[in-house]
Amino acid sequence: MRLIVQKYGGTSVATPERICNVARRIIETQREGCRVVAVISAMAGVTDELIKLARAVSPHPTDRELDILLATGEHAATALTTMAVNALGGTAISLTGAQAGILTDRNHSKARIANISPKQIHEMLSEDYIVIVAGFQGQTPEGETTTLGRGGSDLTAIALAGALNADVCQIFTDVDGVFTCDPRAVLAAKKLDEIAYDELLEMASAGSKVVQSRAVEFAKKFGVEFEVRSTFNRRAGTIAKEETTSMEDVVIRGISLDRHQAKLTIAGVRDEPGIAGRIFSNIAAAHIIVDMIVQNASIGGTTDISFTIHEDELENARKILMPVVGEIGAKRLNTASGMAKLSVVGIGMRSHSGVAAHLFECLGKAGINIQLVSTSEIKIAVIIDEKDLERAAQLTHQEFGLANPAAAASAMQPLA
Amino acid sequence: MRLIVQKYGGTSVATPERICNVARRIIETQREGCRVVAVISAMAGVTDELIKLARAVSPHPTDRELDILLATGEHAATALTTMAVNALGGTAISLTGAQAGILTDRNHSKARIANISPKQIHEMLSEDYIVIVAGFQGQTPEGETTTLGRGGSDLTAIALAGALNADVCQIFTDVDGVFTCDPRAVLAAKKLDEIAYDELLEMASAGSKVVQSRAVEFAKKFGVEFEVRSTFNRRAGTIAKEETTSMEDVVIRGISLDRHQAKLTIAGVRDEPGIAGRIFSNIAAAHIIVDMIVQNASIGGTTDISFTIHEDELENARKILMPVVGEIGAKRLNTASGMAKLSVVGIGMRSHSGVAAHLFECLGKAGINIQLVSTSEIKIAVIIDEKDLERAAQLTHQEFGLANPAAAASAMQPLA
Repeated sequence: MRLIVQKYGGTSVATPERICNVARRIIETQREGCRVVAVISAMAGVTDELIKLARAVSPHPTDRELDILLATGEHAATALTTMAVNALGGTAISLTGAQAGILTDRNHSKARIANISPKQIHEMLSEDYIVIVAGFQGQTPEGETTTLGRGGSDLTAIALAGALNADVCQIFTDVDGVFTCDPRAVLAAKKLDEIAYDELLEMASAGSKVVQSRAVEFAKKFGVEFEVRSTFNRRAGTIAKEETTSMEDVVIRGISLDRHQAKLTIAGVRDEPGIAGRIFSNIAAAHIIVDMIVQNASIGGTTDISFTIHEDELENARKILMPVVGEIGAKRLNTASGMAKLSVVGIGMRSHSGVAAHLFECLGKAGINIQLVSTSEIKIAVIIDEKDLERAAQLTHQEFGLANPAAAASAMQPLA
Repeated sequence: MRLIVQKYGGTSVATPERICNVARRIIETQREGCRVVAVISAMAGVTDELIKLARAVSPHPTDRELDILLATGEHAATALTTMAVNALGGTAISLTGAQAGILTDRNHSKARIANISPKQIHEMLSEDYIVIVAGFQGQTPEGETTTLGRGGSDLTAIALAGALNADVCQIFTDVDGVFTCDPRAVLAAKKLDEIAYDELLEMASAGSKVVQSRAVEFAKKFGVEFEVRSTFNRRAGTIAKEETTSMEDVVIRGISLDRHQAKLTIAGVRDEPGIAGRIFSNIAAAHIIVDMIVQNASIGGTTDISFTIHEDELENARKILMPVVGEIGAKRLNTASGMAKLSVVGIGMRSHSGVAAHLFECLGKAGINIQLVSTSEIKIAVIIDEKDLERAAQLTHQEFGLANPAAAASAMQPLA
């Protein structure tokens, strides 16, 4: 009999009605002749509510207690989903992460899975139970509850699918799958049928957070194929998988948009070892997440270092950097908010030339100024004014033929 | 060093502010030179909210899943209290019921404690931790979460105090202690300094639910003295303990009031074996809780059976009993709502005569009609019209000298 692992996210179980909807889907899947393991997230909003409570009693709650607190969200949703399955005629049993055999390291709040021994899951499946597992959590060898980081239920599902050697892994969420671009910005955006793990990782880090990045890394490492699809309809989703030769024919898989960015430039930085370290260690100490970092070639012994952060952190970062700029003898600090990042992603870039040129031309013709550029093997990201973002997205989407993927390949020249 | 077990109820941890207040008290207790184990209930309202969610997904949720769901309320409050203690300069660690070593039978939703092995508590205490334990829950030998019934955190605290051989056990709640009568009904009601376990049990079953009855039974069985006191002030509370000879000098310890009662009388019931069983098995099957049952002496082969239930169940009970009355050949069913129960409780009754007569006279003089009477060794309960309840309570409280307990004994004659 086929074994299927399904993961239902917080929006999928946000209300009792939705929990019953999920329960019906789980039962249907079993009736189609599958053994089912369902991984459940906390009801939407619950985790944030718990974090708010924690902050109200403690400015810096210990990670151990925070893990115990947050794990209750998944415990509750899992018990409720199990009740719903049983009420609707199924036979289900709930397991905590610990009972499901998810053993982690002792790194509270962002624990890594060390090992999975799904003995109890196998037992329950062999007794024809539908097994409902609390996502996002595991247990240390000492029996302490740990959590796997925000979005960790994706990791629970993919890791369980790997450990159970499941035939199918489905990540149910509130969108139909992974799109060529944000459909709110680009009406012509299309759902992708498939995407390579690396592309999904780049899309995720560039703002299209459909699946937790660590979960995708795990899937890549252990070759776990999974499908991202919607809880709210029956349409097929997007399959994330190892890249295949045919996938390289598509140069650009999609475009990610990341709003509310701020750009900081420290001008006239002496080109000496240790200077960049001094700048960014101060930023890191304040827990400000730095995205792009760009350093230009040195001219006359000095260079300019630019980087981007979330707009909300700009004031904080300015306060931290003003004295540092003096200390390192740099000329000045320029900052600008109201920025956005547009990233084009595709493993086809590895074997096709001219993608960057094509992108720059396209934006240039539209009079959109590019302020920073950063590239990886399969991504080109540009920082532009946020007010230009939607127009840039629509043009790029059109130019790279994403609304009609078959046409996209022919627009580009393969590398020799 | 003295070991103290404290229990904080749901109202004591209802908000982040109150959790911080509890944390401060816990830290103070430690600084006074005690080792502290604190048992925490779910934040007020959380358990009801979770039950509502369960009912929304399932008409009859399985007890196993309900236990997992409800235990999350205590997990969360315990983690939050631990964070608060740590934030306020203490050093605390939280333990689940399972980690605290509370082993129960497999009777989900009303499990009985089978054994307590507080190894981890001892370890943590010896490392100078304040140990914060999730109330209301335990674990079966198979590692399944169980709960101890509504109000079960009292039982957790008293059982832990017994197992740890604690010097003091304090039950913190939202009232100052156990009163001679409900202060909302009788202004002159006084807080008792001490009360015998049996008296507290009778008061609890008669409507004054300050401490869970099972917890009091446990305390009685294992001789665990405990104090009921308020989280919101520093006043000493009421000590529950074994009865002492001096306690018998007080004939009536207190008066319990129970409102919203309904009285049902089945008249002309044949005085034959099995008839009462047929009546009450039907009522029990509908989960209607019957309080008092009174059966008069048989006259001419028939008798009348009266009993009381909560007013809200009256319609339901009528529907169930109407056909039964016919089947058993009884004459008729009379029902009345708007009733109340007044109970006078005191172990002194065992050695003093005339309490019933005194009570009846007192009510009679005031023109208050007694509709049913039921007695135990240390309690006399009467059913009266609810509209007369407060007047009856005030008169009885006065007549038995409860506002001035020293005078009460002399009002009654000791038995020879």
